[in-house]
Amino acid sequence: MTAIRPVFYVSDGTGITAETIGHSLLTQFSGFSFLTDRISFVDDADKAREAAARIRVAGEQYGVRPIVVNSCVDEQLSAVLAQSGALMLDVFAPFIGHLERELDQPRQAHVGRAHGMVDFDSYHRRIEAMNYALTHDDGVGLDYEEADVVLVGVSRAGKTPTCVYLALHYGLKAANYPLTDGDLESDRLPPRLKAYRRKLFGLTIDPERLHQIRQERRPDSGYARLETCRREVQAAEAIFGLERIPMLSTTYVSIEEISSKVLSTLGLQRGMF
Amino acid sequence: MTAIRPVFYVSDGTGITAETIGHSLLTQFSGFSFLTDRISFVDDADKAREAAARIRVAGEQYGVRPIVVNSCVDEQLSAVLAQSGALMLDVFAPFIGHLERELDQPRQAHVGRAHGMVDFDSYHRRIEAMNYALTHDDGVGLDYEEADVVLVGVSRAGKTPTCVYLALHYGLKAANYPLTDGDLESDRLPPRLKAYRRKLFGLTIDPERLHQIRQERRPDSGYARLETCRREVQAAEAIFGLERIPMLSTTYVSIEEISSKVLSTLGLQRGMF
Repeated sequence: MTAIRPVFYVSDGTGITAETIGHSLLTQFSGFSFLTDRISFVDDADKAREAAARIRVAGEQYGVRPIVVNSCVDEQLSAVLAQSGALMLDVFAPFIGHLERELDQPRQAHVGRAHGMVDFDSYHRRIEAMNYALTHDDGVGLDYEEADVVLVGVSRAGKTPTCVYLALHYGLKAANYPLTDGDLESDRLPPRLKAYRRKLFGLTIDPERLHQIRQERRPDSGYARLETCRREVQAAEAIFGLERIPMLSTTYVSIEEISSKVLSTLGLQRGMF
Repeated sequence: MTAIRPVFYVSDGTGITAETIGHSLLTQFSGFSFLTDRISFVDDADKAREAAARIRVAGEQYGVRPIVVNSCVDEQLSAVLAQSGALMLDVFAPFIGHLERELDQPRQAHVGRAHGMVDFDSYHRRIEAMNYALTHDDGVGLDYEEADVVLVGVSRAGKTPTCVYLALHYGLKAANYPLTDGDLESDRLPPRLKAYRRKLFGLTIDPERLHQIRQERRPDSGYARLETCRREVQAAEAIFGLERIPMLSTTYVSIEEISSKVLSTLGLQRGMF
């Protein structure tokens, strides 16, 4: 039986930073069933007391000390949270002193600033990128002049979620072009893509996996048949090879990893949102 | 003149954890122009040496000590990176000891595990959620039986990016329904939404801001006119009030913040991806 352990991500903002680092830390331990809970927007003493009470109750319920991953900037709020008796992991505390000395400046304790709308222009760019991804999805819009990257691949290879991720997180204008039967039979890059060659990135996938995915969408169709998947993937990979388009298999790789590889391969450096 | 300071997010995986916490830390200091750079998939000594060289060069170029936010799990790789002379902020180090003692277990140093495809089922759920968001965007699919949440609001109030974010990050099936002229004139909830009342969340926006956004999309149209925006927003807010639908203004709020509020208001607790 795996031991249950309640974990709380507590923040004066969205809680994204606390949850991101907390999740990374917990993946380094196994054999536990971590029951995670998010308590966001804890920005005054009342909310902190309420959060502390909730955390204490969870500890009593499971008869084990809860873990709190805390990103509240205000130390007084953190002190209130600590009264819950939980193991407190303060996300910022270990680093702030080093940075204050290095930058010769005291931190400015703005509450919940990291995932707020800090910079209106870059936020706007991100929303624009999102709209771009949706209007240039699946070969709908085919003008790639403005695109930062064009993902190319067979249907259901993972292009759309990756484009949306690139837009939301990096503000990149990411289009995607599905290789059609006609493209695949011609054994070469579709002429309309040639002008954008340095923006192209190929996504491929294991044919068995592709078959499973398509099977769920259109059971027992010609589209989903394993034979079709094998033929399409082989033709797509041949085109990528011949045209020297960088390529990545998405079979065992997450959207985050695909996105990181696309950025580093195409030399796109953008800050994350 | 703002001082330039190079910052590197270095990771054996995607670098998302390092960049998330690094970004949160840097927003607490002002007056600097942080030049951020991401070095992902640093998972062997050669790559670590290459990264260290790149960091050292940046320090020489700007005549200032670089800052490295490092999430490499392998301490030997971190030691190689430290040879760059940068200020090293190790994202995991301050917390691992506490967790090892609390959980009575040594960490398992899996490289780059946090944003990889750890759990296939939950990853699949996320991709399904993404497909759901795209097929239930902007009133396209109107069957909300499967939806976890349905965002309601006037056109361009921020529904689509929020739905996509909820899908990508929380694996939630988020649909969105744009209030049409007919809906707004009737002064009440569209009948087709009534069955899903407890899944509804209203998004509203400052009319002046809405006017700006629409103006960019369709300049000088009736749709973009300030008067139209005022009337639509007022009618939408009246419906939300009358029908007691929770509501949030998106004017000064980021997608992350909107998503967090939706989750906490509707009591949806889901781990983040």
